[in-house]
Amino acid sequence: MEISKNFKPIVSVCGSKTISKEIYKISEELGSLLAENGYIVACGGLTGVMEAAAKGAFLKNGIVVGILPTATKESANPYISIPIPTGMGESRNVILVSMADVVVTISGASGTLSEIALAWKMGKKIISLSNTGGWSAKLAGTSIDNTRNDKILNAHSSQEVIKLIKSIYQ
Amino acid sequence: MEISKNFKPIVSVCGSKTISKEIYKISEELGSLLAENGYIVACGGLTGVMEAAAKGAFLKNGIVVGILPTATKESANPYISIPIPTGMGESRNVILVSMADVVVTISGASGTLSEIALAWKMGKKIISLSNTGGWSAKLAGTSIDNTRNDKILNAHSSQEVIKLIKSIYQ
Amino acid sequence: MEISKNFKPIVSVCGSKTISKEIYKISEELGSLLAENGYIVACGGLTGVMEAAAKGAFLKNGIVVGILPTATKESANPYISIPIPTGMGESRNVILVSMADVVVTISGASGTLSEIALAWKMGKKIISLSNTGGWSAKLAGTSIDNTRNDKILNAHSSQEVIKLIKSIYQ
Amino acid sequence: MEISKNFKPIVSVCGSKTISKEIYKISEELGSLLAENGYIVACGGLTGVMEAAAKGAFLKNGIVVGILPTATKESANPYISIPIPTGMGESRNVILVSMADVVVTISGASGTLSEIALAWKMGKKIISLSNTGGWSAKLAGTSIDNTRNDKILNAHSSQEVIKLIKSIYQ
Repeated sequence: MEISKNFKPIVSVCGSKTISKEIYKISEELGSLLAENGYIVACGGLTGVMEAAAKGAFLKNGIVVGILPTATKESANPYISIPIPTGMGESRNVILVSMADVVVTISGASGTLSEIALAWKMGKKIISLSNTGGWSAKLAGTSIDNTRNDKILNAHSSQEVIKLIKSIYQ
Repeated sequence: MEISKNFKPIVSVCGSKTISKEIYKISEELGSLLAENGYIVACGGLTGVMEAAAKGAFLKNGIVVGILPTATKESANPYISIPIPTGMGESRNVILVSMADVVVTISGASGTLSEIALAWKMGKKIISLSNTGGWSAKLAGTSIDNTRNDKILNAHSSQEVIKLIKSIYQ
Repeated sequence: MEISKNFKPIVSVCGSKTISKEIYKISEELGSLLAENGYIVACGGLTGVMEAAAKGAFLKNGIVVGILPTATKESANPYISIPIPTGMGESRNVILVSMADVVVTISGASGTLSEIALAWKMGKKIISLSNTGGWSAKLAGTSIDNTRNDKILNAHSSQEVIKLIKSIYQ
Repeated sequence: MEISKNFKPIVSVCGSKTISKEIYKISEELGSLLAENGYIVACGGLTGVMEAAAKGAFLKNGIVVGILPTATKESANPYISIPIPTGMGESRNVILVSMADVVVTISGASGTLSEIALAWKMGKKIISLSNTGGWSAKLAGTSIDNTRNDKILNAHSSQEVIKLIKSIYQ
């Protein structure tokens, strides 16, 4: 019997913890589509974009990993299927990015910016929803520095995110 | 619609990276039983006890989380369904314990000893298979220090581990 | 006898690992001035801005802490007086920022951007030398997000950095 | 001009956070001797052995690095000259050990046990004061596992610790 390392791709969704209803809806839709397409969703496990993406995936029976900054799992939003309390504070951002095959960003304040920067440094594919404001809007379509030849991919909808991921993993 | 935080219990299995065939068999059996009983299995993602427990769970279609010390997932054994490359070296031991509802140890050298000590400090329930040698044999049935009133639970078989976990989560 | 927590302020200097001679000179000058003014200098311990700032401080008999991504200290540049090999890869950026009273940035690629973002999130004072290019030039004088009322302070010389730090710690 | 990496040896002192006056005195004496002999002292930065060793070294004008589990430095005891708030909880134990040239343990509960185990795994020299109880007494003179040929060095006084360190760094 042969087992090969056919890990399902993990998509880490990063974004603001305080968001509008509209951004919540986009994030939830993205979570749904990711789960429907068989991707594992990872996020920071808390509120805002993290919760919305988790909810979308969870309600489609997807696996949702929450990389929590806290030492216990009580901080997780209700849609996390695998809570991972790290007790490491902001360092959990590094893990959330490090475990990702693709990093998708929605809106985003300083925490998300740190994740975009780290993802770039680690050579991860990054897709930013440029219609959601924040650092996603500012950085979509740009390069963080000249160590890579590619750019942060610019998506305008959840559907386009899925298309872009499929084009990477075709 | 109500979603409650009914996380499936996560059982982190810790043990030596170099083991005998007999210990491999016990570890694999434990992985199988954990998956059959609906627990999520977590481990350090590498060889030895980590691989055997992962294999047992994976072949029963269980979810197996591998908390890797490396920055990329290539180091994971072939039975990890969710590889989490942390790039944090030995600090990944802290996460493996922190995410656990129950920590089970099999045999064990210095790495496992660090995990037992950390699990004790974090107030985690620990079950050690005392018939597998190493630090599991040395510490099963004992207290690490006087900050807790309980002891490391002493199990003699995979079946007994499952019974003990069920008695904790009844 | 009374001892009060009169820690000397720690200034973490962040910047690119590959830099021009001009940027090296500015970084070294900054390190010298920081040491002469009694500040502890911290950096990532490697090359480029990290080395130059360390050199400047070290040659003025300053204390230079190097927060290294590696597990051993051999990677430290020769001007680190206290090497701290973390074995944590990119997560060491979090520590470098977390330990700082003030974060100063010079030029800067993705790693520096992650440090600026994290410093902002942690409420740290940030001073960027806007005449050194990279993310320092892009972000000096701006706000990372609307969770704070202040801005990244814009300095045009090492001397101005010292003045700004003194105005914070007057 | 040549600068060589002549780092001063760093001695990380690990031990219980709640200790008797007698153990406090031993720890403080050790700190004094370490500073007098030119070693940098590192510790977890909090109370008990950490405070006593820091006090001894600090009052002899030694450099005392405190690797704190908290995200801010307010938790540091008053004798820490370089506080390093990591915000990483128990993972700071890994850094405290990783940065050490020699690890010295005094008494010790579960946290110290984790540090002994990690130090062993990282190949660090470990010296335990066997007359101070706790895990230091239990493990002095023993091997943690068979991956190393040496043993945890057994010291009976602060003076003997210094002699042992000097024999390592002669």
